[in-house]
Amino acid sequence: MREVAILGIGQTQFGELWDRSFREIGIEAGFKALESSKLSSKDLSALYIGNMASGAFIDQEHVGPLVLDYSGLAGHHFPSVRVEAGEASGAMALAQAYLAVASGEHDFVVVGGAEKMTDVPDDRGAAIASSTMDQEWERVFGASMASLWALAARRHMIDHGTKREDFARISVLDHENGSKNPLAHFRNKISLDAVLAANPVASPLGMLDCAPFSDGAAALVLGPLESARKYTDTPIRIAASQIATDFVALMHRKDVTTVESTVVAARRAYQRAKIEPSKIHLAEIHDAYSIGGLMALEDLGFYRKGTAGKALSDGEIGNGARLTINSSGGLKAQGQPFGAVGIAQVVEIVRQLRGEAGPRQVSGQEVGLTHNLGGTGATSIVHVLTRVN
Amino acid sequence: MREVAILGIGQTQFGELWDRSFREIGIEAGFKALESSKLSSKDLSALYIGNMASGAFIDQEHVGPLVLDYSGLAGHHFPSVRVEAGEASGAMALAQAYLAVASGEHDFVVVGGAEKMTDVPDDRGAAIASSTMDQEWERVFGASMASLWALAARRHMIDHGTKREDFARISVLDHENGSKNPLAHFRNKISLDAVLAANPVASPLGMLDCAPFSDGAAALVLGPLESARKYTDTPIRIAASQIATDFVALMHRKDVTTVESTVVAARRAYQRAKIEPSKIHLAEIHDAYSIGGLMALEDLGFYRKGTAGKALSDGEIGNGARLTINSSGGLKAQGQPFGAVGIAQVVEIVRQLRGEAGPRQVSGQEVGLTHNLGGTGATSIVHVLTRVN
Repeated sequence: MREVAILGIGQTQFGELWDRSFREIGIEAGFKALESSKLSSKDLSALYIGNMASGAFIDQEHVGPLVLDYSGLAGHHFPSVRVEAGEASGAMALAQAYLAVASGEHDFVVVGGAEKMTDVPDDRGAAIASSTMDQEWERVFGASMASLWALAARRHMIDHGTKREDFARISVLDHENGSKNPLAHFRNKISLDAVLAANPVASPLGMLDCAPFSDGAAALVLGPLESARKYTDTPIRIAASQIATDFVALMHRKDVTTVESTVVAARRAYQRAKIEPSKIHLAEIHDAYSIGGLMALEDLGFYRKGTAGKALSDGEIGNGARLTINSSGGLKAQGQPFGAVGIAQVVEIVRQLRGEAGPRQVSGQEVGLTHNLGGTGATSIVHVLTRVN
Repeated sequence: MREVAILGIGQTQFGELWDRSFREIGIEAGFKALESSKLSSKDLSALYIGNMASGAFIDQEHVGPLVLDYSGLAGHHFPSVRVEAGEASGAMALAQAYLAVASGEHDFVVVGGAEKMTDVPDDRGAAIASSTMDQEWERVFGASMASLWALAARRHMIDHGTKREDFARISVLDHENGSKNPLAHFRNKISLDAVLAANPVASPLGMLDCAPFSDGAAALVLGPLESARKYTDTPIRIAASQIATDFVALMHRKDVTTVESTVVAARRAYQRAKIEPSKIHLAEIHDAYSIGGLMALEDLGFYRKGTAGKALSDGEIGNGARLTINSSGGLKAQGQPFGAVGIAQVVEIVRQLRGEAGPRQVSGQEVGLTHNLGGTGATSIVHVLTRVN
């Protein structure tokens, strides 16, 4: 397979975009990505879209050709493929688009992620969000996503001595970073005390441990690395694109304090990229629930099991510290449009590696990682991105 | 890219399977496909699933890892990818799985299609079925899938002199073939008079011009052609796997009597397979509505525009005639589990090319074609399959 590069990036505002439709935000992200490269729509030959639940949120399936159509590109008749993997739909679309280019089947493709979530009542939104868990063995017994992550959090505290404050710090970090991201859903900073004092959702998790429902879209232009310099001054190489899966229901996992799919996806990605996690100091990690962020730090190999909490409280993790995570604001502050998350993570890493992250810029990084999770970890997708010098 | 072969096939009963769940039928199809090859689950490294609307039908998204999990394969942690393209979800999953093998990323993969449609009330089912059309420009004005196909039918009659009886014959053919297929939803034969006298749905289309809602699943095992003989005595080569798209809303198309995406997908597929449509005498075509079947005969290049009706009435099309279509029973009689259709079409062509189609067997065919449609033609996917001698 040939090497693949990212040639353009685009992203919409994340938030409650009540005046904008799914197709509008999808198109905006795609065209921004295209405009940021030197390609025109005539150079493209395929579109990939990550979307989790447009059927449930807006009664619209078949969004692949829909976005192509409303982008004015229907006349090209080229393939448009929708991919779904729960909240990991964005990274899954990227993984498939990567294969399409790496294989030689397509040269230049746009891959986007989009979700329009806030046009349904909150209880309906929560029900749709729960559709990534096992309906027959979790949902019917009343489990919510928060309650499942709360079980993991409690177990992590018991087995590994993790403190309530440890994962609360993930939310504080996210809001600190989100305050510097004009596209973020939330731009207010929050204190550790505020997270600890927030209304409980599923103990030990409170309101400020949980990412919001957001509308938003993000997109990338991919092409062969060999010709990348023709289309951008700052190509970013996809050094690894790896997917792993696990049991859907939490109760079937060996150990609920480890997301095994993340461990496996990361291991495979490090092998492909020929890199050790100790050499990576820049990552966007999936923290729909703060405890998930803490677990990702361990499961991705940045910290040994039970040690990420201390690293957080010691200040080892933060913008410009030993490890920068979620400079975008992460899922908690940048927002969580399900299908867009995995692509937006990559957009932020590309900005950082290009030196275009503005007040969030971290210096001297050559490599970054993204970690996108579906459900409570039935799907994990890890991408490793590197600067091309 | 390397050549890809089909090494195994599996299919469940199609019909109203009220005693069986989505995951059960998905697993049955996958294991049947695996058992029909000489591979074991240990040889696999990825799963692809075509499914249109499990979120809407059974409140379950994220069905990729779900089916893997309930197949007992979660411990392998390998990628499981759900793909959606409306009623073309099955063929779209195959197209992506094909790339995964052709690229060298994976050696042996299972690709399945599944849909569980009959556990919702009929009106809800019809609403979900409509989610592949343009919600904002078709559905909100009251269009149903049948009404859109009825517009195309009326226009075809006016512009091309097509007679009501011409497309009614598609349904008669389907039921004739379905009567010989033990897995078909409907096994009764129907007369031309019965189709013409059936209750109207959207004039000129009546009840017997419309395919049913069905539950069902089908699956294939794919692998590299170069080692195919190790795993089956009768490998079938995927000579072409091509996707094309078009405007989603019917009103935006140049000519509603032509499905342009089918014309383009077929042209690309014939180029890849290096074959002319005149050399193909065996096909499974997408006839959710009988007029769609007639149009496919023309759009695929088997007949010039306006001549398929006469060919049907002259008896040129039928089992063992000049052109055999839908020996499976097609969507009308074999049934229409949305996500499974595109895979089941391939399963039938493989049976025919292997000489395993029992009472439906057509002799002497070396090549077959499948045609799977999403919506009213916003997506068309054409596969060309050949015997390996």
